[in-house]
Amino acid sequence: MIKFSLCPRYEIAFELLGKKWTGLIIRCLLDGPKRFSDLTDIIPHISAKVLADRMKELEQHGIIVRNVYPEIPVKIEYSLTDRGKDLQRALDEVQHWAEKWIIIDQKKDV
Amino acid sequence: MIKFSLCPRYEIAFELLGKKWTGLIIRCLLDGPKRFSDLTDIIPHISAKVLADRMKELEQHGIIVRNVYPEIPVKIEYSLTDRGKDLQRALDEVQHWAEKWIIIDQKKDV
Repeated sequence: MIKFSLCPRYEIAFELLGKKWTGLIIRCLLDGPKRFSDLTDIIPHISAKVLADRMKELEQHGIIVRNVYPEIPVKIEYSLTDRGKDLQRALDEVQHWAEKWIIIDQKKDV
Repeated sequence: MIKFSLCPRYEIAFELLGKKWTGLIIRCLLDGPKRFSDLTDIIPHISAKVLADRMKELEQHGIIVRNVYPEIPVKIEYSLTDRGKDLQRALDEVQHWAEKWIIIDQKKDV
C-alpha cells in the first residue's frame, strides 16, 4: 500500500489562500497594479486594517510587491509578482469547483 | 472600475480544503474507497481523533460518504462522492503552484 506524506507546501498554500479576502485581493491584482485606495474602492466591505494585514502577508510571501514611485505626492502601487500571477489557474479551479458544488446554505456549517 | 464581490463559495472551499490533513485525506480517497484503519495506516502521524474530526467535516460537506456493509464484523468504508472526486483538478493546481513556488523555510512565517 502506498504511504502518503503530508506536503507542507500544499498546506502552506491553502492556509495562505484560504484567509478571508486573500483570493479576492489576488483576483483584483490579476487585473493590473492597484493602489491601496483602489482596492478598498473595488472590494466592498473590507476594512482598511484587514486589507493592510492581508497585503502585508502577501508581500511577506512574495506574492505581491509594493512599488513606491518618488512623485509628489508619493505614489504607491501594489502588483503581483510572477509567483502571484501564477496563482491564476489554482484560483480558477477552486472557484470553478466551488461554484459547481458549494451550496450557500452550507456556510453556516463551516 | 469593476467592483468585485466576495464569493462566499470560494471562501468556504478554501476554508474547508485548507485544514490540515484534509487535502491528503481526499488524495488518499481518490485512489479508491478506504477503511478508517487504512487511512491511519497510509497517512503517518495523523491521530485517530483528528482523522475522525476531518472525516466528519468532509461527510457533512458531502465530499465523502460512509458506507456500512452489514457483514460480520461490520465493514465500514469511506469513499468520495462526485463532489469529492471533482476536487482533483483544484487540488492538483494548488499542489502544482505550491511545489513550484513555496520555499519550505517559509513555513515559519505562516
